[in-house]
Amino acid sequence: MKETLKIAIIGCGGIAKAAHIPAYLKSPGAEIKYFCDFNLALAEELVKEHGCGTAVQNYKDILDDPDLDAVSVCTPNHVHASVSIEFLKAGKHVLCEKPAARTYEEALEMQKVAQETGKILLIGVVNRFNTAVNIIKNMIEDGELGELYHIYASFRAHRSIPGLGGAFTTRAISGGGVMIDWGIHYLDIVMYCSGDPKPKTVTAQAYSKLGRDMKEYAYMNMWAGPPKFEGTYDVDDFVTALIRTEGPTISMNGSWAQNIGEEEMYIDFLGDKAGIRLNYGGDFKLFGAKNGALMESTPKFNKQDQFQSEIDAFLNSIRTGEKLPSHIDTVIVSAKMIQAIYDSSEQGKEISFTS
Amino acid sequence: MKETLKIAIIGCGGIAKAAHIPAYLKSPGAEIKYFCDFNLALAEELVKEHGCGTAVQNYKDILDDPDLDAVSVCTPNHVHASVSIEFLKAGKHVLCEKPAARTYEEALEMQKVAQETGKILLIGVVNRFNTAVNIIKNMIEDGELGELYHIYASFRAHRSIPGLGGAFTTRAISGGGVMIDWGIHYLDIVMYCSGDPKPKTVTAQAYSKLGRDMKEYAYMNMWAGPPKFEGTYDVDDFVTALIRTEGPTISMNGSWAQNIGEEEMYIDFLGDKAGIRLNYGGDFKLFGAKNGALMESTPKFNKQDQFQSEIDAFLNSIRTGEKLPSHIDTVIVSAKMIQAIYDSSEQGKEISFTS
Amino acid sequence: MKETLKIAIIGCGGIAKAAHIPAYLKSPGAEIKYFCDFNLALAEELVKEHGCGTAVQNYKDILDDPDLDAVSVCTPNHVHASVSIEFLKAGKHVLCEKPAARTYEEALEMQKVAQETGKILLIGVVNRFNTAVNIIKNMIEDGELGELYHIYASFRAHRSIPGLGGAFTTRAISGGGVMIDWGIHYLDIVMYCSGDPKPKTVTAQAYSKLGRDMKEYAYMNMWAGPPKFEGTYDVDDFVTALIRTEGPTISMNGSWAQNIGEEEMYIDFLGDKAGIRLNYGGDFKLFGAKNGALMESTPKFNKQDQFQSEIDAFLNSIRTGEKLPSHIDTVIVSAKMIQAIYDSSEQGKEISFTS
Amino acid sequence: MKETLKIAIIGCGGIAKAAHIPAYLKSPGAEIKYFCDFNLALAEELVKEHGCGTAVQNYKDILDDPDLDAVSVCTPNHVHASVSIEFLKAGKHVLCEKPAARTYEEALEMQKVAQETGKILLIGVVNRFNTAVNIIKNMIEDGELGELYHIYASFRAHRSIPGLGGAFTTRAISGGGVMIDWGIHYLDIVMYCSGDPKPKTVTAQAYSKLGRDMKEYAYMNMWAGPPKFEGTYDVDDFVTALIRTEGPTISMNGSWAQNIGEEEMYIDFLGDKAGIRLNYGGDFKLFGAKNGALMESTPKFNKQDQFQSEIDAFLNSIRTGEKLPSHIDTVIVSAKMIQAIYDSSEQGKEISFTS
Repeated sequence: MKETLKIAIIGCGGIAKAAHIPAYLKSPGAEIKYFCDFNLALAEELVKEHGCGTAVQNYKDILDDPDLDAVSVCTPNHVHASVSIEFLKAGKHVLCEKPAARTYEEALEMQKVAQETGKILLIGVVNRFNTAVNIIKNMIEDGELGELYHIYASFRAHRSIPGLGGAFTTRAISGGGVMIDWGIHYLDIVMYCSGDPKPKTVTAQAYSKLGRDMKEYAYMNMWAGPPKFEGTYDVDDFVTALIRTEGPTISMNGSWAQNIGEEEMYIDFLGDKAGIRLNYGGDFKLFGAKNGALMESTPKFNKQDQFQSEIDAFLNSIRTGEKLPSHIDTVIVSAKMIQAIYDSSEQGKEISFTS
Repeated sequence: MKETLKIAIIGCGGIAKAAHIPAYLKSPGAEIKYFCDFNLALAEELVKEHGCGTAVQNYKDILDDPDLDAVSVCTPNHVHASVSIEFLKAGKHVLCEKPAARTYEEALEMQKVAQETGKILLIGVVNRFNTAVNIIKNMIEDGELGELYHIYASFRAHRSIPGLGGAFTTRAISGGGVMIDWGIHYLDIVMYCSGDPKPKTVTAQAYSKLGRDMKEYAYMNMWAGPPKFEGTYDVDDFVTALIRTEGPTISMNGSWAQNIGEEEMYIDFLGDKAGIRLNYGGDFKLFGAKNGALMESTPKFNKQDQFQSEIDAFLNSIRTGEKLPSHIDTVIVSAKMIQAIYDSSEQGKEISFTS
Repeated sequence: MKETLKIAIIGCGGIAKAAHIPAYLKSPGAEIKYFCDFNLALAEELVKEHGCGTAVQNYKDILDDPDLDAVSVCTPNHVHASVSIEFLKAGKHVLCEKPAARTYEEALEMQKVAQETGKILLIGVVNRFNTAVNIIKNMIEDGELGELYHIYASFRAHRSIPGLGGAFTTRAISGGGVMIDWGIHYLDIVMYCSGDPKPKTVTAQAYSKLGRDMKEYAYMNMWAGPPKFEGTYDVDDFVTALIRTEGPTISMNGSWAQNIGEEEMYIDFLGDKAGIRLNYGGDFKLFGAKNGALMESTPKFNKQDQFQSEIDAFLNSIRTGEKLPSHIDTVIVSAKMIQAIYDSSEQGKEISFTS
Repeated sequence: MKETLKIAIIGCGGIAKAAHIPAYLKSPGAEIKYFCDFNLALAEELVKEHGCGTAVQNYKDILDDPDLDAVSVCTPNHVHASVSIEFLKAGKHVLCEKPAARTYEEALEMQKVAQETGKILLIGVVNRFNTAVNIIKNMIEDGELGELYHIYASFRAHRSIPGLGGAFTTRAISGGGVMIDWGIHYLDIVMYCSGDPKPKTVTAQAYSKLGRDMKEYAYMNMWAGPPKFEGTYDVDDFVTALIRTEGPTISMNGSWAQNIGEEEMYIDFLGDKAGIRLNYGGDFKLFGAKNGALMESTPKFNKQDQFQSEIDAFLNSIRTGEKLPSHIDTVIVSAKMIQAIYDSSEQGKEISFTS
């Protein structure tokens, strides 16, 4: 095994710059060899900024570089599958940003190729490397909550559609809206903490409402750029779902945009001994009872940089072969569930995996 | 029509004393002729306190009094149907406390008798006489929310099981737990405000968890009396549901007891123009947008005593024949939905009314 | 049309530095060619600070530069008219700070020259580019307030005379005190939001009281420099007025200095359906009623930098010829009203424009 | 002079019961001989409650009782003049509730009869007996405010129309709305404290807006009884005025109902040395400067019951002949001003008393 793994960054947008690149740069055993973007200027800027690597416009040009070990796929969602598959087939390990793909079908294809090539395919469900999430997962496994019977995920923002009319809101590119962009993180935490239980039924309804009349859409800010009024808005801005699994049931309400001005971004884990409310991206509270007294506990812990942990684990996995919890073989299940959420919404009825 | 309507109170417990009796006493056109309770002492105390009426132990003794016009049925749930039916058959008008009955089947029988006898049968879904609820209903009808696409009802208390081991927690008496006792009010507000739309599918899961181990159950207070450890606890203390109707979809999470120490008691009405958060039993906020600005609006209004309004409307309905929104013919729909919630929970799958 | 418009800043005091210059510098289509001030050092400092332009002492030296497109007139009020007129006659477009001039007569002369030369003459009534003000204007036009029948403007500060004894408090330079300096902004917002209605009658009384005895004048701070005891104080520090227009009536109370220690800086728009209180320079509240409930609404919106919007609009207006709401042809009306306020005060009687 | 003065209460409504009757009962030198009301039951109830006096339906029946010394006229406004005049002509002293009358003409007639008969005619401008008001009046006379140059009276409530559709809102009965009912008190305090200066000009505009559509009028409470939808609403609910006098100028804004949800009920006295804000019916603050420091002073004093002081002064005046500040000869001036306010509003122009 080489001492230093050679990495290519495929897609040089926000998530690459904010998360993947800084983490690789801090990791002693890795070196970024290529910055790749169809907009070559973006790639060149990064070469200049970091004083390393080569700028590349077409990722196909580096597929055959025998020196390249692994890639981070940070492109828009619609090419997650094709790009990842090409690199796997070229013998490279892949960390692909979430969601795995736009559809379950695409994700299955990715999994198939990963299995055939024997290369690692991780999906960027980065919360599996979050400190609070892992503490909660361990508590649940240790039985501190008793029987975990229900989990409620609330990812409800007021008016927070990103880049109206851009890649995020164009289904052909993104695969969906709030469910696939935010909901995937919530669902993934739910699945991870509850031991990745097999889903049994999924009922859901997704709505595309507030962004439809683009010019009438009022907002305070728009992460992911200003509106493009000539663009497309055909994704879900609100979703509700109820899921039965072999473990707990799961209910969720999520919105990129709703006419309720409260931000409720949390996951509630309901056990018969104790319960936990996790504030997404932050702390959690434990609610239990001891000797007849109700107890509310607030943990304190050092938060690790979850992207650094993810990248370090990816590099380590390449070296050791250890299978990570963000492997496509695990994440494929939530891809199936999200597909079912959209399918149930379209068909207006529950999807069953057991019949 | 007589100037003063003669009333009998059947069941002299909490709701009779707190709500029905004071309202009849303040109503100029009504007179309480009988206080009736199997525990005669309770009835006699009320005769003494209010200086009117006669105490009766067995309601059958007054069925044939030709001078009696109407009754309020304030008994435990398991005799709602039988008592109401006997009085209807005896030619009396009936205001029966919620829920109509323990099961949809019982409720249907009540409706049938009401139709056969031509007598009025109201169910005590008192929020239909609540000022805030009616303002919201009118706003929705006036189109102020635009298209109302989803409603989320949260009736989640921390540890609030009533009278553990008593009538409330014994399914044979009550018909169910948090869903039939609290959820009925939330579901009823949802249905009333959205125009009582026809339900299409119901998926739900109800759990009986925290009250099971009665002696271990810790709590701060217990409305409806102290625990009876020799009693029964076989009702739901948590429920989650997702309902499709011909109008909006409805999601709900409710608990009498959960290991999350936050009280979230509200209903969110999501429209594509504006939305409303109603704090149960209190005020509401309206969230919308005008000329590019997001607007958060707080209403001020005179709150009428909803029980007084309900009783006044009942008495007026007897005189005028006007059909009220709390008539069994309307409320039967939510009885059907609650039955479906329990059925779906038992069967682990969605119930469809359309196939 | 040239791609980049060449600009001269005439007068390099507070408003130039805080508002005009930064806005031109951020605007891609403009370039500051000259900084001009009788105090040459002020101009030279700006050249040095911003690394652009040439410092000029006498504005007459640049009148004939064919490369110069437009000027911002940021001088003391007494030369607003003469400077603007010279630049208009030299074929330049002019953005002149408010007030247009010291008197209505001077303002009329400015308008006449603008019309004769065909050049743009904007007055710096910058609130016409304020986000909140425009939302309110649109709400009023959309009929949200119903009939707008009265507007009350309160611009009452406790002890806030600027630069006692300086240009602000010397009538020969400034044209007046609190009415012409602050009141003009309030009156302008009132006029803009109500559709610039024609005035019918003006009654007013202005007082010059608290600054008279300069050495006795106590204050907490003095924006626009320390007192010059050898200077002049002959302007109004309190004004009250009642105006009838073809639209709403307007009442106002304003003070630079009064012996009431409350700051009440707001405009109330009274409509028969709803009303708005605008806190000057900040947010507003909407008060209305819906379905029997009184509603108090708080808007949230992105506040644009109003000076940037004003400058951008000026530059755009030069390019496209679009007539802006701050054009002298509109602003002349409030100049007439302010003149009438001072005239009515001197004569002790109402001024009528209709007889 | 008799030791005990015999009194008749003419009109047994709210103000009689809350103010006049308790004050007479506490006064050792007075005895209520008659309670008079066209609704005899009201009068009889008071006889029974207080164990004194005789109930009378028609006041004409007691005009000739030689034992009767004085009357309090507490009727609706439209008979203030006629009733007071008849009792004056019958040789009785009269304390007539404010306003003196519906119009200046009626008030002048009252004054004429008072002068002809030599009997006392007081008007119930009770604030002239208010402790805070008298302290302020004394401060002003002592020169503590320096030159008093302007007074601003704000009597602005949100939604406070009394008894919509009743006597208060029917001009033929009341003579007007917020100006004559509330404004009279504010104007009277202004006049009293500034030494009852002669008015020179009056400009005003009164509006009748929010109560017009009675069924749509939303409110929190309605002092003076519930709405009578079949009744009349033709009075002012908003008024603005600017008055010049031989002393200070006066501006005012008042509303029974406006779409601004702030209650601003105060009078500001602006002097060149100091100023006072009096919160109506409560305390006041003094704002001044001493030795270069701004001073805000809050007085503390014993508040006398102003109605008791008024009645005691009336009784004393009968005995001693002392002329009181609430005598018709003084109050006639504000009657003239209120008439001018309504006249100016109708004519849309300033009324001058000097030309």
